[in-house]
Amino acid sequence: MSEPSITHLISKRAAARKTLHFTDGPTNDPPKGFKAHPNPLPLHWGMPNNGFFPIDSIDVNLVEYPFQKSLSIPVTNASLESLSLTGSSEGGQTVTPPLVGASTKANSIRITRHSDDKKKIIDIASGLQYSPVNGLAPLVQFTRDFIERTHKPAYEDWDTIITGGAGDGLNKAAEILLDPEDVILIEEFTFTPFLLNVEHAGGIPVPVKLDISEGSNGIDLDYLTDLLENWEALKPGLRRPKALYTIATGQNPSGLTQSLEFRKKIYNLAVKYDFAIIEDDPYGYLTLPPYQKPQSYLKLGTFLTVEEYLKNHLTPSYLTIDTTARVIRIETFSKLFAPGLRLGFIVAHKKAIDAISKYAALVTRFPSGTSQLIVNNVIEKKFGGVDGWLQWILKMRVTYAHRRDVLLNAIFESEAYKNKYVDVIDPQAGMFVSFIVNFPEGTDIEEKIGLLVWKFAEFGVGVVPGINMAVEKKFSLDRANFFRLTYAPANTDEEIIEGGKRLTAAVQDFFDKGLEF
Amino acid sequence: MSEPSITHLISKRAAARKTLHFTDGPTNDPPKGFKAHPNPLPLHWGMPNNGFFPIDSIDVNLVEYPFQKSLSIPVTNASLESLSLTGSSEGGQTVTPPLVGASTKANSIRITRHSDDKKKIIDIASGLQYSPVNGLAPLVQFTRDFIERTHKPAYEDWDTIITGGAGDGLNKAAEILLDPEDVILIEEFTFTPFLLNVEHAGGIPVPVKLDISEGSNGIDLDYLTDLLENWEALKPGLRRPKALYTIATGQNPSGLTQSLEFRKKIYNLAVKYDFAIIEDDPYGYLTLPPYQKPQSYLKLGTFLTVEEYLKNHLTPSYLTIDTTARVIRIETFSKLFAPGLRLGFIVAHKKAIDAISKYAALVTRFPSGTSQLIVNNVIEKKFGGVDGWLQWILKMRVTYAHRRDVLLNAIFESEAYKNKYVDVIDPQAGMFVSFIVNFPEGTDIEEKIGLLVWKFAEFGVGVVPGINMAVEKKFSLDRANFFRLTYAPANTDEEIIEGGKRLTAAVQDFFDKGLEF
Repeated sequence: MSEPSITHLISKRAAARKTLHFTDGPTNDPPKGFKAHPNPLPLHWGMPNNGFFPIDSIDVNLVEYPFQKSLSIPVTNASLESLSLTGSSEGGQTVTPPLVGASTKANSIRITRHSDDKKKIIDIASGLQYSPVNGLAPLVQFTRDFIERTHKPAYEDWDTIITGGAGDGLNKAAEILLDPEDVILIEEFTFTPFLLNVEHAGGIPVPVKLDISEGSNGIDLDYLTDLLENWEALKPGLRRPKALYTIATGQNPSGLTQSLEFRKKIYNLAVKYDFAIIEDDPYGYLTLPPYQKPQSYLKLGTFLTVEEYLKNHLTPSYLTIDTTARVIRIETFSKLFAPGLRLGFIVAHKKAIDAISKYAALVTRFPSGTSQLIVNNVIEKKFGGVDGWLQWILKMRVTYAHRRDVLLNAIFESEAYKNKYVDVIDPQAGMFVSFIVNFPEGTDIEEKIGLLVWKFAEFGVGVVPGINMAVEKKFSLDRANFFRLTYAPANTDEEIIEGGKRLTAAVQDFFDKGLEF
Repeated sequence: MSEPSITHLISKRAAARKTLHFTDGPTNDPPKGFKAHPNPLPLHWGMPNNGFFPIDSIDVNLVEYPFQKSLSIPVTNASLESLSLTGSSEGGQTVTPPLVGASTKANSIRITRHSDDKKKIIDIASGLQYSPVNGLAPLVQFTRDFIERTHKPAYEDWDTIITGGAGDGLNKAAEILLDPEDVILIEEFTFTPFLLNVEHAGGIPVPVKLDISEGSNGIDLDYLTDLLENWEALKPGLRRPKALYTIATGQNPSGLTQSLEFRKKIYNLAVKYDFAIIEDDPYGYLTLPPYQKPQSYLKLGTFLTVEEYLKNHLTPSYLTIDTTARVIRIETFSKLFAPGLRLGFIVAHKKAIDAISKYAALVTRFPSGTSQLIVNNVIEKKFGGVDGWLQWILKMRVTYAHRRDVLLNAIFESEAYKNKYVDVIDPQAGMFVSFIVNFPEGTDIEEKIGLLVWKFAEFGVGVVPGINMAVEKKFSLDRANFFRLTYAPANTDEEIIEGGKRLTAAVQDFFDKGLEF
């Protein structure tokens, strides 16, 4: 059996790409008698010595848990302050809100010009210097260790490369896979900016039906199987697909998550019909327990140990079943650390990473060293590596779960919900909820969604119509009776509750008026 | 007369590009009776509230001048410690090296989660959040103010956009100008990674002869004029050029600088033959006074006031004579602040900036917020805005001038120089020196340069052969008897001196052996 490899799926454009820098040494054989100098001096690289940098060191001052410094009253996160995260399982215990402002311990890390531990720590001298296009070594190593711990690939020759965030990662995946006229399968409702990347590479997107209902895995497997079996008849003139793009955990916009069993079925199709899988996973680590009526503060019982989390809560990536090296996984630090970093990474077969590296050298260059040194050093020096970083993620997770509970509760208590005008899908991960409007049969969905958007604007709540995120509006109209909600940006629980109230009141008003404005 | 505009030179690809995000509101007219809510709540944007960010504040600890903390002996920069930068002109005064370690004043800025002065300061809440693709408002405003002060364009409708450094800026300029088969004129020896950007856009590079000699302006004006006058005869089958790419100040690799008078001549050709000018200027602010025999410490006389610097030392950009809006100027913070930031900006007509913005939204996304908040806030809070930033640049300038003097002096004192085997061009700006080898007439330059590279490797000094930076090797062979040297990366003056000694000793040895290894 041949080694697993993605080589045959790399675009011709990417495969042909070369890089050679003018500062590289000679490539011919040295003349007879040549002896290399043991300690050459650089008069060639046009890079300023780090002594020219105005920054000598950086102190990063951190919080112990999300919103520690943001809220003056013990609502969303205050109860975290007195918690240790080492024990406990999913019980039902609650704690009483502690006094605010009790914690004043020093909580800073210093990044110095020169570090003694260059394997783990990125110092100013290297972080603010020109650096490898694949990322600075300590952070690259962290991403490898992190993936080993969370989603270990089912083959050996995988690697990682640091990117400028998920958007950058997605563009790179499209670029190295798709030649002009190459077809890519895409969930019919999706993160539509990716369509521009597909178009930029010359690719052709083909939507795949979703089943947007409670308990669904998202992708309509029967539809996809039939499409692949009868491709020539159903899509005459189109090439067979080169790739599938999927947001498999906490799908955007539906919030749905594919089970591991379901992923295996999709993966088998990928092997059978020989296409790559671009797995976009910006917030899948934010696993959410089933909805519970929220307390006015966080529940102790929602805490997990890292081991419990990895074993029973995190849905394994397609990487973990990827025996043939066809998965390109896109990660980002945007949702777990901060979006302004413009930092993420890609996990894939080494040949795919090589192709991405060559594209990056040409177009996007190496990612911000400032961001790399801050993220790497906060993770290493404050959190203490992979498991500490996962503990931070658990704190994020519990905060998001609480917010999700607050939003769903506001909807469940509404008149519109009790009247069965609306429904929601309780997400198992991420930051999005499908808010379904149960229009009477025969309704012109496009027209009524268009009116409802204005109704929401009048009632004072911003939502995203599912149809705005369709690959092809016409293809998806029948399944477009939903809106994407998120509990991520709100400042307080009160804002989420008020948002839910306005949202449902708008629908109630719309139905009261016979689906007219 | 029509308004100056670059519109007709924008590539078809870029002109056709659209962006629309799924979170954008409805674009149709609101229904009758619609009233917008005064205070809508966001359940739509998938961006985490800043309370989720683990960073509460950042302290950036700075130095007062380059190398303040790096050198333990008062060599390159120590004498800066006791200097004020408010007065003095180019005299010949010297100061005695002061005691080291005398300055211990606090020298930090704090970047907080929320700032009271959002016009000038980028806080954590906005710097680490998703942000506008053109850059965060305070930094964009700074770049505008900076260009107003240094290189004010000769028309009104110009703008700036933040980039991920000069490499990113160059790729963007190529992308929005060049369609497949479009021709771009390029200095025959140049920053060759740009050729890959040209190729990526489908463009065709055509080299323009350089005159690499003391006092030259670089581009061979007679050659260029003839080429443009007789294009169809000289370049049959090629389209007329769409653009000229030039590094007009401290050219890479030659170190040459075009005078303002010379730029006017080139610009007139651009107007006559209707092509754009991509002006790449990564280190042009580092203007260098003519060589002087270096002291073992910095000379007070090399300091300038900002006014003197702007009036008599900084060569005006092509922007300042750009009455027809055809110049795209590429700047970077890499050489003046630090390369790892991946931060720069582009100055051009608004229509060009719009096209670049649309490309960025698709491919490179917005630049690192981490880098933007650090650079902007250091400039605003530590340096005090545009003039303070220029004063930092003056400190950089004087340090580079000293290093240049140290390198040239080492060469001038060498046997090879005294034997007239080698020559150098004293650069007026930047970080590069042409090191010319005077081969006897009839020498096979390619072969001998190839051998010399190994000789340098044996003597222990890294240099860049000019031929490595040729657009077309064959076209440029006759003028390829030089190497690019730089005094930027060395740790100390001693390293520069030793580098110069090894370099010239290698040439001497090569000539002693009859141009054989």
